[in-house]
Amino acid sequence: MSIPTEISGNTRLYAIIADPIHHVKTPQAINALFRRRGQDRVMVPFHVPAEALAATVQGLRGLANLEGFIVTVPHKSAMLALCDRASAHARAIGAVNAVRRTAAGELVGEMLDGLGFVAGLRQEGIEPAGMSVYLAGAGGAANAIAFALAEAGIARLTVANRTAAKAEDLLQRLRQAYPALPVARGSGDPSGHALVVNATSLGLREHDPLPCHAERLSPEQVVAEIIMQPVHTPLLQAAAARGCRIQPGLPMLLCQVELMATAMGAPSGQGRA
Amino acid sequence: MSIPTEISGNTRLYAIIADPIHHVKTPQAINALFRRRGQDRVMVPFHVPAEALAATVQGLRGLANLEGFIVTVPHKSAMLALCDRASAHARAIGAVNAVRRTAAGELVGEMLDGLGFVAGLRQEGIEPAGMSVYLAGAGGAANAIAFALAEAGIARLTVANRTAAKAEDLLQRLRQAYPALPVARGSGDPSGHALVVNATSLGLREHDPLPCHAERLSPEQVVAEIIMQPVHTPLLQAAAARGCRIQPGLPMLLCQVELMATAMGAPSGQGRA
Repeated sequence: MSIPTEISGNTRLYAIIADPIHHVKTPQAINALFRRRGQDRVMVPFHVPAEALAATVQGLRGLANLEGFIVTVPHKSAMLALCDRASAHARAIGAVNAVRRTAAGELVGEMLDGLGFVAGLRQEGIEPAGMSVYLAGAGGAANAIAFALAEAGIARLTVANRTAAKAEDLLQRLRQAYPALPVARGSGDPSGHALVVNATSLGLREHDPLPCHAERLSPEQVVAEIIMQPVHTPLLQAAAARGCRIQPGLPMLLCQVELMATAMGAPSGQGRA
Repeated sequence: MSIPTEISGNTRLYAIIADPIHHVKTPQAINALFRRRGQDRVMVPFHVPAEALAATVQGLRGLANLEGFIVTVPHKSAMLALCDRASAHARAIGAVNAVRRTAAGELVGEMLDGLGFVAGLRQEGIEPAGMSVYLAGAGGAANAIAFALAEAGIARLTVANRTAAKAEDLLQRLRQAYPALPVARGSGDPSGHALVVNATSLGLREHDPLPCHAERLSPEQVVAEIIMQPVHTPLLQAAAARGCRIQPGLPMLLCQVELMATAMGAPSGQGRA
């Protein structure tokens, strides 16, 4: 694969900021999107260590042809404070992963991790509105998904996390932002929820324990995963064996790419040269 | 044309900093070089207005995968002060157009405009060492070419410029750096010099006057041009008509591309992935 047009002085610029950088897949996915759209735009990797983030981001304000950038590990929380504005959603989560640079050099932050997850569900015909949800995890990804599900109008949310304090902190912030949403701490038992979401890293490594008691899953449940590699995690395999509908993590990422392009200010459809 | 490999998290980064940016041709030329060499490297345009240069360059120190950048109009002089180190050649000229970023984030400047001109002459079999040279112009390009020709060992240099003060300033700095080189101010008459160089912008626009009295040219002279578009300027046409050997500006730029890659720290030959 290759980009469609040669990079020239007219090419509009996008970046992804991370440390380490070698593993990122967003440039490949976004550049493929720009190619499909015929847009003279390119995303490049910016490898920025944590101690350099503030000065580097300050410098990026002066890049007049930089339209926006994606921010990932370990910068998502720190980036919020470096933005001039951020969406209410991003502020509630306390993190930013997509930044649009205005013509005046202002930085406008959004947090798409959870919104991309919800868009991925909807793309598969799974409408979270009205669902009861069991969420395993209370870290950065779980935070983003919890707020996006709350915003999508779920009926109730159960958060299960090994470290109680992190779960309680998430629940407290959810109660503040969505007072009408019933939320509670859960155990390892996912039964009684229409949607079961793994937002922990369990399943990434070969001998990880399952993120919840898979033997309590039943066929009417949907089981969704944030882990992308392996595509079919042990949890998804167990869920499929018990007759559940499963939703792997990878399509969610692909779905997030269009949201990213929009959040960074790229016009949809056919682009200008 | 397109870059050979998809841009990934492993791709090493280069930039060109300019204002305006749309007209730059260096990304196309350098990316073609990286393709020929099979290197996973890419140059992108950075559009930076003068008032943002210092903060932006400070921010670029934190981009760990940025290997270096080219600097062009209007930033070449300002960039010298923003480098941690610069070659004696760049310091003598008072400008920088190629910067290498070390692993520690230090910026090392070089000035290639004149060195590229000399390399372009040599590639065509024209050895400036020992030549008497007539140089039209005393601006940025003329400065760089004068010092590079002095360094290459020319026998004497005549500088002709409409604004006398600019010519005198250049001559004074040349005398300081190369006390053994005979230098003098010239008129519009290029006769008596083996090499005649136009380093003014005259010839860029259609009805420009010639940069020197072309009727005084004779067949034993070589006439070189910095203007790239049109390739055959009125001066080169007049010189060719009088039997002179001519050297257009475009091949000089192409020759400078390899110097640029080296000055920005790119390994020559087959690159690592």
